[in-house]
Amino acid sequence: MPTQEELYEQQLEQITDLLTARHYLELREVFEDINCADIAQLLEDLPQEKLPLVFRILPKEVAAEVFAYFDSDAQERLIRVLSDQELKEVLDELYIDDTVDMIEEMPASVVHRILTVAPSEMRHSINQILHYPEDSAGSLMTTEFVRLKRDMTVEEAFVNIRRTGIDKETIYTCYVTENDRRLIGMVSAKTLLLSDSDALIEDIMEDNVISVTTHEDQEATAQMFNKYDFLALPVVDTENRLVGIITVDDAIDVLQEEATEDIEKMAAISPSDKPYLKTSVFKTFLSRIPWLTLLMLSATFTGYIITAYEEALGRFVILTAFIPMLMNTAGNSGSQASVTVTRGLSLDEIEFRDLPRVMWKEFRISLLCGAVLALVNFAKLLLIDAQTNPSVTWEVALVISLTLVVAVIAAKVIGCALPMLAKKIGFDPAVMASPFITTIVDALTLVVYFQIASMMLGI
Amino acid sequence: MPTQEELYEQQLEQITDLLTARHYLELREVFEDINCADIAQLLEDLPQEKLPLVFRILPKEVAAEVFAYFDSDAQERLIRVLSDQELKEVLDELYIDDTVDMIEEMPASVVHRILTVAPSEMRHSINQILHYPEDSAGSLMTTEFVRLKRDMTVEEAFVNIRRTGIDKETIYTCYVTENDRRLIGMVSAKTLLLSDSDALIEDIMEDNVISVTTHEDQEATAQMFNKYDFLALPVVDTENRLVGIITVDDAIDVLQEEATEDIEKMAAISPSDKPYLKTSVFKTFLSRIPWLTLLMLSATFTGYIITAYEEALGRFVILTAFIPMLMNTAGNSGSQASVTVTRGLSLDEIEFRDLPRVMWKEFRISLLCGAVLALVNFAKLLLIDAQTNPSVTWEVALVISLTLVVAVIAAKVIGCALPMLAKKIGFDPAVMASPFITTIVDALTLVVYFQIASMMLGI
Repeated sequence: MPTQEELYEQQLEQITDLLTARHYLELREVFEDINCADIAQLLEDLPQEKLPLVFRILPKEVAAEVFAYFDSDAQERLIRVLSDQELKEVLDELYIDDTVDMIEEMPASVVHRILTVAPSEMRHSINQILHYPEDSAGSLMTTEFVRLKRDMTVEEAFVNIRRTGIDKETIYTCYVTENDRRLIGMVSAKTLLLSDSDALIEDIMEDNVISVTTHEDQEATAQMFNKYDFLALPVVDTENRLVGIITVDDAIDVLQEEATEDIEKMAAISPSDKPYLKTSVFKTFLSRIPWLTLLMLSATFTGYIITAYEEALGRFVILTAFIPMLMNTAGNSGSQASVTVTRGLSLDEIEFRDLPRVMWKEFRISLLCGAVLALVNFAKLLLIDAQTNPSVTWEVALVISLTLVVAVIAAKVIGCALPMLAKKIGFDPAVMASPFITTIVDALTLVVYFQIASMMLGI
Repeated sequence: MPTQEELYEQQLEQITDLLTARHYLELREVFEDINCADIAQLLEDLPQEKLPLVFRILPKEVAAEVFAYFDSDAQERLIRVLSDQELKEVLDELYIDDTVDMIEEMPASVVHRILTVAPSEMRHSINQILHYPEDSAGSLMTTEFVRLKRDMTVEEAFVNIRRTGIDKETIYTCYVTENDRRLIGMVSAKTLLLSDSDALIEDIMEDNVISVTTHEDQEATAQMFNKYDFLALPVVDTENRLVGIITVDDAIDVLQEEATEDIEKMAAISPSDKPYLKTSVFKTFLSRIPWLTLLMLSATFTGYIITAYEEALGRFVILTAFIPMLMNTAGNSGSQASVTVTRGLSLDEIEFRDLPRVMWKEFRISLLCGAVLALVNFAKLLLIDAQTNPSVTWEVALVISLTLVVAVIAAKVIGCALPMLAKKIGFDPAVMASPFITTIVDALTLVVYFQIASMMLGI
């Protein structure tokens, strides 16, 4: 059976062939059997100049859905060649939140054109959502949801859904509001379907509704989907008036983006919002160079520490040979702790009040790790290294192994505490998580190494 | 306004007080206004011996849902004290896939008891799902879904949903099968609600259904939810017979788990499936020590390289002072590339065929990064370090800066290529991503450093 990747290559080839042969009707038929998300990817992979032609071949409803799946480059290229009428047709079919996502990525001239073409009601909603901070619940929401009244019957609710549902992003969770728009309950389509048609909404609705305010952070909002298994979450203003809803597909995007951001920060990269292959060389360079430079300069401290012991190292050059091993091992130990704790903080599994518990736990883990590493290393130094290198005496082996124990304990305890303290004072724990800890732990390891060496070898 | 964390603390305190005062009726009322996921967390945070008592206070339907949100420790403790009748009531209310998730974590004696208490039909479904590999689509699915026939009308479909829907995990996506259970279409509840009641299912169903087979990897399966914005995905056997469905809440769990696993592997930790605070010290130690030991031993190579140049280093001790800075900078450069590429592979944004493109891109990025770092470093060495340390001559500064350029280029090109090659030959790219690359890059950096130093300083 061909893999997904091979199937995709076959489809791309078939489409290219049909395009070259100008068999447009046949091409239209091929697209009928392909999911819109896949069509979008295929069109992006075609030569750029073919995009408008192929896009116009698609049936109208399909075209709009495909458009929503395009990356912002393809969207922009397309908007620039579409007529006002064509653009209006696409906008009519798009959900408001997808339109806003698109607008956020476009240059001002394109935004202006979109807002000019959009009907006034749509323009109003777009402006409302654009007004919220970029990483807030308000910017994620859509204003297209099903609103019910408490005194409706189930039958009336269905009439309402049938009349307005086609334009709503979801009809599976309906919200019950008072006349002043205050949110008082929710009822799922499942409950509606399983209730008597003359039952009153206020009798079957869930009145204990979990909601977020427009300014809630998008990561915390998305985590609520993870915790409560919601399909949609209502967004209210400070007076508990319902202004929009967030659907689970957008929450998944946020969860994936936030995980990617955390991973990037842990690897000393400033987060970018575009996929790697779509980011230019210069932009990628810009997202990496500040951290590299900062960390390079901060490694100056380790240089100073070594220089301070220059003379002693001239006499005991063998000590130099183990500096990388000691620093790497301590750095890895610290990263293990900091990365674990940082991920726990992101997933709300760890809170600040757990700090003493976490430190005590890491202390015990580091004792075990330090002891095992020191033993393995001591044995290796005496049984292997000492055979070929007479400078590796048992005193040297002891210095190195003792340093390992102390450095691993320090690395793990600092590694777990720093991200938690960072979060408490409003810094980003992920930035603390890996490269920063390594720099601190490196310096510390060297100090411990030379102190122990001074005491035991008299350097 | 109190934060979520403070609200939670208040609730926990209130419940503890009511428990101490034995005001059980009032306690039951308090729980009425709390979401089941939150109740589960509150109960886990109460003293262990109170758990069965409080659990029995909950209304039956709530109890089962709360049970599904418990972690496996709490589930096990509870099952051990519930009577057969109580256990049966909980099982009756649980969805099959939650039951299977629970069983997978339980010791054999508890599993035996669950299977004995479960009705025979449920036992059959449990056994069927348990039979699939742990990380497969089959193990994620539920067998409780709505099945329609092609010759049903919309009205008949609703009758079917109303009759069987209460026990189904979702009724929002219904699947159309032939009599031999082959999957031929799907229809959403939205389509059903917006269609005429006498329309035939085969006329309104989507017949181009995307599905997965039971043995598909769970990560690839979950990524499909991310790509296509599904609420549910059908699972078929090798003959395209529908055997179950996966719902979006389980896909979110998998996406979060897989992101956590990737992060752990990049930090040289063997993935664990329990949250940090619920894992014992010894288990956490076991998940960390193998990689620490392996990486410590592999750092032996850097030691050998330094030992080989021992004599030269004795004469030029100043070179030693810059080893940590060079190794860290090269290591960070390599991690940036490898971590970015690994995440791109996880999100299906990068495929193996992109290898030449990725390498060419990283080469250009590394040229820019290397040049900037070398310039900054050269300036800093001559303008700052040379003022206090006469050993820092311009030749030394040049050796160090040239090494930076070569090491950064090598680190980034190896860093991007290794995870892609690893994936191609069936290894885990995340394991390659960070610590392994660092070890390779460390050794390489030292060789480059000493080679350049030999040529330019004649050591």
